[in-house]
Amino acid sequence: MTQSNSNEPRGGPENPVPQAVVSRLSLYSRELQQIQQEGKETISSTQLGSLLGFTDAQVRKDLAYFGQFGYPGIGYRCAELIEAIQQILGTDQDWPIAIIGVGNLGRALLGYRGFSRQGFRVVAAFDADKSQTGVQIDGITVYHIDDLTDVTRREGIRLGVIAVPGSAAQEVAVRLVEAGMVGVLNFAPVTLNLPDGVRIVGVDLAIELEQLSFAVVNRASNA
Amino acid sequence: MTQSNSNEPRGGPENPVPQAVVSRLSLYSRELQQIQQEGKETISSTQLGSLLGFTDAQVRKDLAYFGQFGYPGIGYRCAELIEAIQQILGTDQDWPIAIIGVGNLGRALLGYRGFSRQGFRVVAAFDADKSQTGVQIDGITVYHIDDLTDVTRREGIRLGVIAVPGSAAQEVAVRLVEAGMVGVLNFAPVTLNLPDGVRIVGVDLAIELEQLSFAVVNRASNA
Repeated sequence: MTQSNSNEPRGGPENPVPQAVVSRLSLYSRELQQIQQEGKETISSTQLGSLLGFTDAQVRKDLAYFGQFGYPGIGYRCAELIEAIQQILGTDQDWPIAIIGVGNLGRALLGYRGFSRQGFRVVAAFDADKSQTGVQIDGITVYHIDDLTDVTRREGIRLGVIAVPGSAAQEVAVRLVEAGMVGVLNFAPVTLNLPDGVRIVGVDLAIELEQLSFAVVNRASNA
Repeated sequence: MTQSNSNEPRGGPENPVPQAVVSRLSLYSRELQQIQQEGKETISSTQLGSLLGFTDAQVRKDLAYFGQFGYPGIGYRCAELIEAIQQILGTDQDWPIAIIGVGNLGRALLGYRGFSRQGFRVVAAFDADKSQTGVQIDGITVYHIDDLTDVTRREGIRLGVIAVPGSAAQEVAVRLVEAGMVGVLNFAPVTLNLPDGVRIVGVDLAIELEQLSFAVVNRASNA
């Protein structure tokens, strides 16, 4: 779940794209890739929706924000729709990313296979602790935070993932922006203040647990 | 972001509560707590919405799924609405939770302050590696996975957080259910198959990065 200043409209203020729609695009893309691997070339909105627990109307409405993708009597062509969604999400681009902080969370993220699977390439890690400088973690070099700007420019890093304690997060975020990064994924449990042009997505893991407690508490109503 | 089989209606199939609404309840609750700490007792839907980047209509519509909370000419009473939301989310209950797997991710989660802040109490960790048995991490004891059922019953653990590699996740999930847990938060990048009565929320961190790339790619349209 995401709290962010990134929930901006694609089509201008008159036709904003809700953040939930963007999240669902990610799910559609994963499901389509799975379907394609199983050798299917096309899928209907009903089939795609039912695989994810959504209605066909929801699928069509979500995609309609971005264009016309279905073919009458055929449905969606998987390869074509995957490519379109990747273009919408920007994941057809190269996104060299850096992880800031190599404590347990930073190390977990460096070992996380899910990023590269979606085209995000972790190219560097940074830490303020000099004893970590030069260390390799899962094949990624840890640099000292003072080398942030140099390495960011050299590697063309665009997104930074903040995995430092909350007390250090704002200062780190400012340094990421100064180094030229355009987006920040923030795991620290604080709200960041950054210039308008910089996008921030905050990850609050307790929200996922609250979704779970809600689901458990309310399951009786589906019996 | 969450892919789950937990997105079940509160009010039955005719009046389902979208998962995005549940996520927003979490945000409202955090913001209201913040406002309350600043000494304010009431807030309008317009003010609450604008703090989070939502319209007042969105706030009212979200809350209307669960009842009537506002007062004409006053707005929402913070303390009352916080209590109502906690009841809806189930976070007014005690949720002893366990973390399974004490690699980097498990350790990061054991040190994560955000869970306890929202009332989730981590009471135990488990790992299949016997060298970890009995170790204390951030004050939490690591048990061997073979003691799962005993400890779960003794501590009344209801939710399990899966922080093991994908290859082990399904087997671990089945053991959590056998031990009596009713909800699973899954960080492993695999889809779990569990009995109908068990709730699963899956955490896919790449989806957060995709939200970020979308926001960066589409920011030009807000200029």
